[in-house]
Amino acid sequence: MSRLDQQMAFLTEVDRLKSVVRATTLCDASRFENSAEHSWHIALYALVLAEHAETQLDVTKVIKMLLLHDLVEIDAGDAPVFGAHDTAALELQEAQAADRIFGLLPEDQASQFRAIWDEFEANETPEAMFAKSIDRMQPPMQNLASGGGSWTDYNVTQDMFEAKIAPKINNGAPKIWAWLQPRIRAFFATA
Amino acid sequence: MSRLDQQMAFLTEVDRLKSVVRATTLCDASRFENSAEHSWHIALYALVLAEHAETQLDVTKVIKMLLLHDLVEIDAGDAPVFGAHDTAALELQEAQAADRIFGLLPEDQASQFRAIWDEFEANETPEAMFAKSIDRMQPPMQNLASGGGSWTDYNVTQDMFEAKIAPKINNGAPKIWAWLQPRIRAFFATA
Repeated sequence: MSRLDQQMAFLTEVDRLKSVVRATTLCDASRFENSAEHSWHIALYALVLAEHAETQLDVTKVIKMLLLHDLVEIDAGDAPVFGAHDTAALELQEAQAADRIFGLLPEDQASQFRAIWDEFEANETPEAMFAKSIDRMQPPMQNLASGGGSWTDYNVTQDMFEAKIAPKINNGAPKIWAWLQPRIRAFFATA
Repeated sequence: MSRLDQQMAFLTEVDRLKSVVRATTLCDASRFENSAEHSWHIALYALVLAEHAETQLDVTKVIKMLLLHDLVEIDAGDAPVFGAHDTAALELQEAQAADRIFGLLPEDQASQFRAIWDEFEANETPEAMFAKSIDRMQPPMQNLASGGGSWTDYNVTQDMFEAKIAPKINNGAPKIWAWLQPRIRAFFATA
């Protein structure tokens, strides 16, 4: 196979991310969101909101992380954050998925993309921390717009949200969390 | 409104791109593609294929162009390339859509995003030419995978494709077109 053959095989395979359905709906609640359009949306979130990060970011790296971050779901599926799942088993499935999917690319690109995904997953660099926080804040934004969404479906309370999600948004994007928190409190106060 | 208020209003509004349906289907032909997931897909195309451009590209700018390029469809709709439409009227609608949608952002970001979209539309810089060619080559890739797709729906022949689309792919990505052309000829030879 030529280099272009390998690249085109990868680009055709990743089309399947459009069929991975998430727990969050569109803002108008008309249907559930898929992981491909979610990835587009949060790349745009990052582009617009990067100025609110705590340090100067390599925005290109953040966008690459967000374009690639959910590809493993083609094999491993989307695990709703308030659903029950075996974390260790899921991590193994996702690592195997990364091997297979990035492995479709020429070796140098496979290594480069895998390194970006590993950095995102490790959540240690400023870029990864910001990207992870953006990934966590878009579903609450959709739920606020749709009037409940996955919070309603999973019987999520403000306490559950504050315990499980709030620290993950605050970790890489505290200024954005400061904007979002009162809106979420107001929602749960009247829900 | 604060800066974050404006940015969040924009990010919520652009969710509507997920409801703009295109003429192309997914590779498995299960449904029509929407413009948000299409935008994600071609941003990834650009990331993988930029090395085949004729000159060294500012890949970040290409990706920004592709993330933003279809936002005007929220107001103006998607105009299938083989469908009938009034080009002048469509260009006016799209320019008005750009005014409204980018205008939701703080002024500096609105100007910056509008300049990126204008550069893409003008199709003169190496980045715009490559981005436009990538945007034109993903639908044929989907049609090859699905066994016809929008070519079948719009009764497209090889001559029509060679006249209308081929030059647009070749313009910014001749090496990629050289890979794709024999595959498209083989498809139409047996269709």
